Amino acid sequence: MKDLHDPYRFPDLAPLFNPASIAVVGASDKEHSIGNHTFRNIVEHSKFTGRLYPVNPKQDQVMGLRAYPDMASLPEPVDVVVIVVPAQFVAETVEQAGARGCRFAVILTSGFSEADDWGIAEERKLVEIGQRTGIRIYGPNCPGLVNLNIPLGMSFSPAFKTDLAPGAIALATQGGGLGRNMMQHNYRGMGFSAWSSSGNECDLQVADFVHHFAGDPDCKAIAILVEGFKDGPRFAAAARRAAEMGKPIIGLKVGRSEYGAKAAQSHTASITGSAEVNSTVFAQLGVIEVDDLDEAMDVAMLFTRKQPTGDEKVAVFASSGGAASLCADNVGTAGLTLSTFTPETTRKLAETLPSFANISNPIDTTSISISHPQALMDSLIACANDANTDLVLAPIPMDYGIYTEANARNFKTAQDTTDTPIVPIWFSEKTGEGYFELARSGLVPFRSLRNMGKAVRRWIDYGRYLQERDQTWTPLLLDTGVPGPATITRTLTEAEGKAALAAAGVPVTTPEVAATSAAAQEIADRMGGPLAMKIVSAQITHKSDVGGVMLNVDPAAAAAAFDTIMASAAAARPDATLDGVLLEPMAPAGGVEAFVGVARDPVFGHVMTLGLGGIYVEMFHDVTRAMLPVSQAQARRMIGKLKSAKLLSGYRGQPPRDLDALAKLVATVSDYVAAHADRVEEVEINPVWVGAGGEGALALDAVIVVRD
Amino acid sequence: MKDLHDPYRFPDLAPLFNPASIAVVGASDKEHSIGNHTFRNIVEHSKFTGRLYPVNPKQDQVMGLRAYPDMASLPEPVDVVVIVVPAQFVAETVEQAGARGCRFAVILTSGFSEADDWGIAEERKLVEIGQRTGIRIYGPNCPGLVNLNIPLGMSFSPAFKTDLAPGAIALATQGGGLGRNMMQHNYRGMGFSAWSSSGNECDLQVADFVHHFAGDPDCKAIAILVEGFKDGPRFAAAARRAAEMGKPIIGLKVGRSEYGAKAAQSHTASITGSAEVNSTVFAQLGVIEVDDLDEAMDVAMLFTRKQPTGDEKVAVFASSGGAASLCADNVGTAGLTLSTFTPETTRKLAETLPSFANISNPIDTTSISISHPQALMDSLIACANDANTDLVLAPIPMDYGIYTEANARNFKTAQDTTDTPIVPIWFSEKTGEGYFELARSGLVPFRSLRNMGKAVRRWIDYGRYLQERDQTWTPLLLDTGVPGPATITRTLTEAEGKAALAAAGVPVTTPEVAATSAAAQEIADRMGGPLAMKIVSAQITHKSDVGGVMLNVDPAAAAAAFDTIMASAAAARPDATLDGVLLEPMAPAGGVEAFVGVARDPVFGHVMTLGLGGIYVEMFHDVTRAMLPVSQAQARRMIGKLKSAKLLSGYRGQPPRDLDALAKLVATVSDYVAAHADRVEEVEINPVWVGAGGEGALALDAVIVVRD
Repeated sequence: MKDLHDPYRFPDLAPLFNPASIAVVGASDKEHSIGNHTFRNIVEHSKFTGRLYPVNPKQDQVMGLRAYPDMASLPEPVDVVVIVVPAQFVAETVEQAGARGCRFAVILTSGFSEADDWGIAEERKLVEIGQRTGIRIYGPNCPGLVNLNIPLGMSFSPAFKTDLAPGAIALATQGGGLGRNMMQHNYRGMGFSAWSSSGNECDLQVADFVHHFAGDPDCKAIAILVEGFKDGPRFAAAARRAAEMGKPIIGLKVGRSEYGAKAAQSHTASITGSAEVNSTVFAQLGVIEVDDLDEAMDVAMLFTRKQPTGDEKVAVFASSGGAASLCADNVGTAGLTLSTFTPETTRKLAETLPSFANISNPIDTTSISISHPQALMDSLIACANDANTDLVLAPIPMDYGIYTEANARNFKTAQDTTDTPIVPIWFSEKTGEGYFELARSGLVPFRSLRNMGKAVRRWIDYGRYLQERDQTWTPLLLDTGVPGPATITRTLTEAEGKAALAAAGVPVTTPEVAATSAAAQEIADRMGGPLAMKIVSAQITHKSDVGGVMLNVDPAAAAAAFDTIMASAAAARPDATLDGVLLEPMAPAGGVEAFVGVARDPVFGHVMTLGLGGIYVEMFHDVTRAMLPVSQAQARRMIGKLKSAKLLSGYRGQPPRDLDALAKLVATVSDYVAAHADRVEEVEINPVWVGAGGEGALALDAVIVVRD
Repeated sequence: MKDLHDPYRFPDLAPLFNPASIAVVGASDKEHSIGNHTFRNIVEHSKFTGRLYPVNPKQDQVMGLRAYPDMASLPEPVDVVVIVVPAQFVAETVEQAGARGCRFAVILTSGFSEADDWGIAEERKLVEIGQRTGIRIYGPNCPGLVNLNIPLGMSFSPAFKTDLAPGAIALATQGGGLGRNMMQHNYRGMGFSAWSSSGNECDLQVADFVHHFAGDPDCKAIAILVEGFKDGPRFAAAARRAAEMGKPIIGLKVGRSEYGAKAAQSHTASITGSAEVNSTVFAQLGVIEVDDLDEAMDVAMLFTRKQPTGDEKVAVFASSGGAASLCADNVGTAGLTLSTFTPETTRKLAETLPSFANISNPIDTTSISISHPQALMDSLIACANDANTDLVLAPIPMDYGIYTEANARNFKTAQDTTDTPIVPIWFSEKTGEGYFELARSGLVPFRSLRNMGKAVRRWIDYGRYLQERDQTWTPLLLDTGVPGPATITRTLTEAEGKAALAAAGVPVTTPEVAATSAAAQEIADRMGGPLAMKIVSAQITHKSDVGGVMLNVDPAAAAAAFDTIMASAAAARPDATLDGVLLEPMAPAGGVEAFVGVARDPVFGHVMTLGLGGIYVEMFHDVTRAMLPVSQAQARRMIGKLKSAKLLSGYRGQPPRDLDALAKLVATVSDYVAAHADRVEEVEINPVWVGAGGEGALALDAVIVVRD
């Protein structure tokens, strides 16, 4: 029952993050208990000004507040019920909370689907209660939820009270440990608007929090850490929403290797999906994929400084020749562009800096950072106000104590003169007061040149994504959802597959099947030659392995070829039922071969794979992928991303290939799968013959797997 | 004048690092002067027990020590003269020091070749003084030299006194800023044996320090940071020495991008060379190339723990499910192997850990790190003593204060039970007492999972390098040195080039040149067909661009083809002198094409490049490189490294290619260049035809560039 405008009916999570009233079931005065930690985090370490009710039948008061024996006795249906009672009492509590009209249950308790069969069953019960009573469930098996702009921590974590830096980064994770790791980036100067850590996600999931953060004015960037998406299309819809709102999502997905996928699956009981497909989906949705947690924070930090346009040019401002060189080196390896200073900037730099300084980009002021701090600041101001410069990178290789501290203050003064972000890279392991001066001033440093290069690259790329978004967006094939794994599938014969594709408008060689040698001869005489002839049998997939394929057959020899093929196949596979031999015209000589495939990913649904020829796919993994549907324009873009694309554009004196025809074929295959998304599991067309310009493209083979 | 056993006559640097006597010329009591900083670093912050002489004609005493007016009045010829006087007095001082019989001059003063023409000339003067008097020169334009095992700092740096952690990592850099950055890794627990920062390197250079550290028992790993090698072959010889001594070199070379190369060149006036060649040379010499400074330190740290065998299997030991998953993920993406625990280990883990813990690799103890520290330690001991495990990775995602501190102490206890290194990965930005407890115990943590993966991979690969070293080592072509850039070069004609190769034993098609159509016909009749015919002209390099190539010519049509080629070439290039037309038999159909090239790198000399066919080289940059000489066995290894190698081993039903013949051709080309190393600048054979097994390989074209 999906609404056309909001098929996923994303919940309004404002009352969860900014509740007017909270009940804590299991709140306790008992030292070191989870209930005590949790309640103390709200009472002592939060600045929650709403109504707070401890629920504990064994105490009249908890931490001086009147306690209630159960949900029914609460003076009002609260926005959020935080539950820290043992697992066996959780369902009963949620049932009561739902009946009382409470809106959200935050279940911190562990021992559910992550633990055993009882827990799996109990979690199903929770889902059912939620659907029946309308209460939405957060957790179970999670450390809680944090809103740092109040601050409010509905969490048992002993680290909550130390990780309180507010800021513009929203964080959505599943597990708690890695989320806490990201929160502890506040020790390097990062600030957070909120952190959801949704544990087993029996109801609310990362997608819901992404959707919420997308609409949260306190948030400028959303960082997510995911072990497995509970509902891929739901995430895709939320990510679309974030992109519409101009909110970048920075994503790290565990499971890029088999070890990781297996471990994440065992840890979270999620389907982790394919890493390649996940990267494809991230790229297509504008989710910025990172390789490590610190990289996620680096990119998020840049977005809190400024929104990128996609065309940024950078200046390097250093007081060490080595740092200038190494930073410029990383600028280059990251594919960034150094700005060329205007004559005015160059004049100012020449006036300010000593003659032995390097005043072109990368700037090396030499050691004036110690001897002439004023000149350092003036030259930084000149650099940062340069009309051709969009970002100033200031590598600081070491801590010189009070000198560095003084320069840090001057950095802030320089930043106040311009909108161009000045971003220090403090890559010494020694962080002194100078570091924290920068961080406090909002100039949070990168911690390595490598990370700087990666982060700035990703930041600029997102600007480019926003530029191109309108041209590349198509409606996602999300409303079909992703049906569960197919239990019974059937592979169509080549003739059936080609007929299905032909009916959908895909150009295919038109095969005919002969059941006898006489019929083969009749068909061959009509078609003319040369011909391709292949065995037809539902049991035989690899036709050439059984002597079942003959190419370039002269029409006059068709009857003999029929007999040969049937005899070979019968000898090789006596078990198989042979339906006859397929005949079709050979494709014209001299074409380029392409590969077009569609497979259903268990998380994100149908994904297309495109490549040129077996060699490039097999040896160099030179393929591009996209979620369906793929338009003709998108297909052209996909082709352009192949390293082997120049084979199509007139390589070594060959004529340019019919790119339009290939792109149209790809889009038509996409339309075919979209129209039969509930039934088609897999399409593989290998090869697609691609002729010279105007000659068209032609599916020479087709394997289609359907649900029966 | 190169010694056969030590062609580079590496100096004995022991008296430089462990001097018995030091004079400081320019030592001063004047506060904040360089001379004061430098002398104070020796007197107050070092523990130097040798004889120390301040030289200053204006003071009778410096810091309470008797001062001498000049070098001549010193009571002895000292081991090291540290020079901090202004640039105009430096040469004079070195002259006196050399005359007095001093062994080393450490020149901290700037304003030499990095500054202006006067400085360039003055530096030449220093070199001349050194050669004449025998004094060896360190610098100029450098922050000095540090031996941390005394400690002794002959340096003006105000940071010397804070960066005093001794250890097993030796550091050789050129510039001071980035070197100081690496030294400041002592704030994360690293320790150093020594640091050379050799500045302009007018005499002693990184290669000399690498050679010295290779023989220093205090050093287990050598980290180098280089902007430009002064003498490539000298570095190669030093690196060989380090490999012989089993001392890994971890190298970061600035100049991996054009921006970086240009900046480094302007900063150091060094030739930076090609990044691809540098990576080739590093790999061939076993130098572990890293991408950033922190990576260099990560790898070095591992070597201070244990020498790798190349076959290490790792265990992951975590107390957070997310950390276990993400760590395992990084283990996988780095291509490492998780160990499979023995039944005994599994039994112990099952006894020690709760039932909901994950006791297979990666281990997730769950939150017992807080509740049951003893169980945590016992399970870590079981894991670290597992017979199948060579390295234990312990990801720690966050700091839990006193709990983490207690666990850190237990880590040390566990480490004491085994030789298998336990390596924590402390990837929180919050470093508390727990962190420093680990670092102090010698269990210096990695700071990110990404870096862990990279470092362990590099560490294990070095073990493999040592395993295979003996099979792959050949004498380097170093004794030829690298002559300066060629000013006048000449490109041999195809016929000349093939003749030269043929004489060296390289199988080539045997061409003949016809000056007239009648001669062409005579040659064609004799050769038989089909033939390749190509224009011969010293002015025409791209023969097919001028209609100068005809392939598969029938011998009967040779005279006509001659006329056509000559006419086309004359029309297209009326300026060119046409010497005639070359005829040769076409290579048999069906071969695979390879590319073999040799070029002279300005830093490291002749380097071979090998690839298969133009498509793979151009589109996928699928080439391998090696310094000469390349033996036949090495050529086989090079071929095996190509992604396209499977095209040679019988791809898609094609016969396997004649790998032996290709490898032999490569080795013969190498021998040819080695024999003419002073004259041959460049060889390009494109294509090399490679037949099926036993059919051989054949150079179908040859471009050779020589010095005239």
